[in-house]
Amino acid sequence: MSVQASSASIAGKPCRWGIMGAAAIARKNWQGLRWAENSRLIAVASRSLERSQSFIRECQGSVPQPHEVEALGSYEELLAHPEVDAVYIPLPTGVRKEWILRAIAAGKHVLSEKPVTVSVRDLREIVAAARKANLQFMDGVMFMHSARLEPMVAQIMDSERVGRVRRICSHFSFHAPESFFKENIRASDELEPLGCLGDLGWYNIRMTLCGLHGQMPHTARARCLQTTGNGVPTEFSAELDFEGGTTASFYCSFHTETQQWAHFSGEKGYVCLDDFVLPWFGTASRWSSHQAQVVAEGCFMRMENHERYHAVDEIATGGSTAQETNMFRTFSNNVLTNRLDSYWPEMALKTQLVLEACLLSARKDQPVPVEAY
Amino acid sequence: MSVQASSASIAGKPCRWGIMGAAAIARKNWQGLRWAENSRLIAVASRSLERSQSFIRECQGSVPQPHEVEALGSYEELLAHPEVDAVYIPLPTGVRKEWILRAIAAGKHVLSEKPVTVSVRDLREIVAAARKANLQFMDGVMFMHSARLEPMVAQIMDSERVGRVRRICSHFSFHAPESFFKENIRASDELEPLGCLGDLGWYNIRMTLCGLHGQMPHTARARCLQTTGNGVPTEFSAELDFEGGTTASFYCSFHTETQQWAHFSGEKGYVCLDDFVLPWFGTASRWSSHQAQVVAEGCFMRMENHERYHAVDEIATGGSTAQETNMFRTFSNNVLTNRLDSYWPEMALKTQLVLEACLLSARKDQPVPVEAY
Repeated sequence: MSVQASSASIAGKPCRWGIMGAAAIARKNWQGLRWAENSRLIAVASRSLERSQSFIRECQGSVPQPHEVEALGSYEELLAHPEVDAVYIPLPTGVRKEWILRAIAAGKHVLSEKPVTVSVRDLREIVAAARKANLQFMDGVMFMHSARLEPMVAQIMDSERVGRVRRICSHFSFHAPESFFKENIRASDELEPLGCLGDLGWYNIRMTLCGLHGQMPHTARARCLQTTGNGVPTEFSAELDFEGGTTASFYCSFHTETQQWAHFSGEKGYVCLDDFVLPWFGTASRWSSHQAQVVAEGCFMRMENHERYHAVDEIATGGSTAQETNMFRTFSNNVLTNRLDSYWPEMALKTQLVLEACLLSARKDQPVPVEAY
Repeated sequence: MSVQASSASIAGKPCRWGIMGAAAIARKNWQGLRWAENSRLIAVASRSLERSQSFIRECQGSVPQPHEVEALGSYEELLAHPEVDAVYIPLPTGVRKEWILRAIAAGKHVLSEKPVTVSVRDLREIVAAARKANLQFMDGVMFMHSARLEPMVAQIMDSERVGRVRRICSHFSFHAPESFFKENIRASDELEPLGCLGDLGWYNIRMTLCGLHGQMPHTARARCLQTTGNGVPTEFSAELDFEGGTTASFYCSFHTETQQWAHFSGEKGYVCLDDFVLPWFGTASRWSSHQAQVVAEGCFMRMENHERYHAVDEIATGGSTAQETNMFRTFSNNVLTNRLDSYWPEMALKTQLVLEACLLSARKDQPVPVEAY
């Protein structure tokens, strides 16, 4: 998880990237590739050459890459491209597995959008294939690469500051307009059958796992609060139970205006951040820690906050220190130094395991054991 | 709910109070009585004269009342006291009902600590008795009397600022030492059988109801996460369902260090406060409102917070503007002007109804309908 300039890149040889699919989120990652000095975007592929050309033209107009980017008219061409080391795959979840496996078969390292697949079984297949082929696999959770994550998790783990973690609570939502539920793929039962649980809950689950250093819950209880007419979750809540009595609850929704907060509560204090997915626009990524106390003296009873504010100097997006830039920098460094990091497939799989248990619990309306990693 | 100086008090005639039981929380309310200019503390009663004397001596040493306070050696003496108009009853929940009913029978207005009783049935009996006797009944939820409540709830109800409320989430906890579970009455199955649900969850539920202007949930789902050996809840979580799809979750615990936050999330924004029960020590009671937005332009995708911070000039405790002072001021004003306010018994009963459904749900491990108010 360390963020450092690659020595290979300093020597002038970058990791060479292709983007598979001209999705909206790919525009943001175009920026990440632009700013990661050890990465070079070679080509963008979509199902039509025109679409790739138009995507590249628009992105070059917004954030120019320091070189030409090749437009390709099919995913196959990208996978056959001899100068591409790694592919970023923001295709819809319903069709992603096939292309991830084909990319691995073509010898490409893979950075995949999330939720990686529709099932644990599919993801296990992907992880095994990447391991066998000695290729890096990672899911595109940008916040994992924010410079604030490590010091913040260290505080959560600090036995004097937070103490034993008892409760985690997180909320990730945005309010989609009516048209979203008719037109957006995130409400499509074929393309994104996991709905808000895959699109948003993936982050809730990942943040929860991070706060517990990867400890897995043993039981999930969840509810689908709203669905589309064809059963895609659009509002979802869950509670997870861990060994030792820790519990975590999360809520994700397409119906509630943008929120993205997480609280980590222990026996001695708590840590919270109110922008865990995408740092608020600005140049600092912040969080806070608190050790509140009731102090009673005679008839005086004071509630003392004892808050401390923390920040790292990090641009929210579109710059050298941005979390999406760190994501590409870290990935490229692993590729260039040939030191693949099994932490990333592990965290992706753990996330998918918890997600699947939540979905099953909601469908059965009863507690469901979480399959072991 | 209006907070104003009583004209009766200005004319020199205060509401005359007695405290029944020398509990720790009574020390804080001694302060409230000290600062409410329309209230006068006449007497303190406990089961022994020495205990009452000692309580009065200690409180007078900390926050002197501007006059003598009489020590009484029994609750009966207080109820028979001809100069006492209203009694504040911080007795343990397990024995409170009897004394509330006896106080009403003696013609005293009653301010009761919470949870008022161990059951809805008991509280209905109390509310009916007070109504019949034309006496004010109120539960001692101080935050209901903070000057921030009204403007904050107005923001939550603001169709442009928060929009339709979709989700409420709250957390109230403190970390009790080991000795607490052996010695403190709040872990006693006889004196406080509702445990953390009564001691803390009462506030979560009340705040939730306030945020929805008193709308009642129709269903409760809850879990007792931890109990004492004899079944008293010490950690508890619940989710409440309301007509129209709004849901509310809350968590309360004796095992997690002090936290007291509430979020009110709507289709257009959210309101949050991180000290909803007892304002952080200081001279301002604060909250914030947010209308976060993702803004995409070309390859730029910014997460904009659009936060606004709000505050009322209010001392956290121990002064003329403190919420506990407002509580006594409002109550005394109702008594002095003989304008009893049915809002208070209504809110107490609604809180107890939701609490009871939560407890039943946790015991049965299934959703439970909330009895109608």
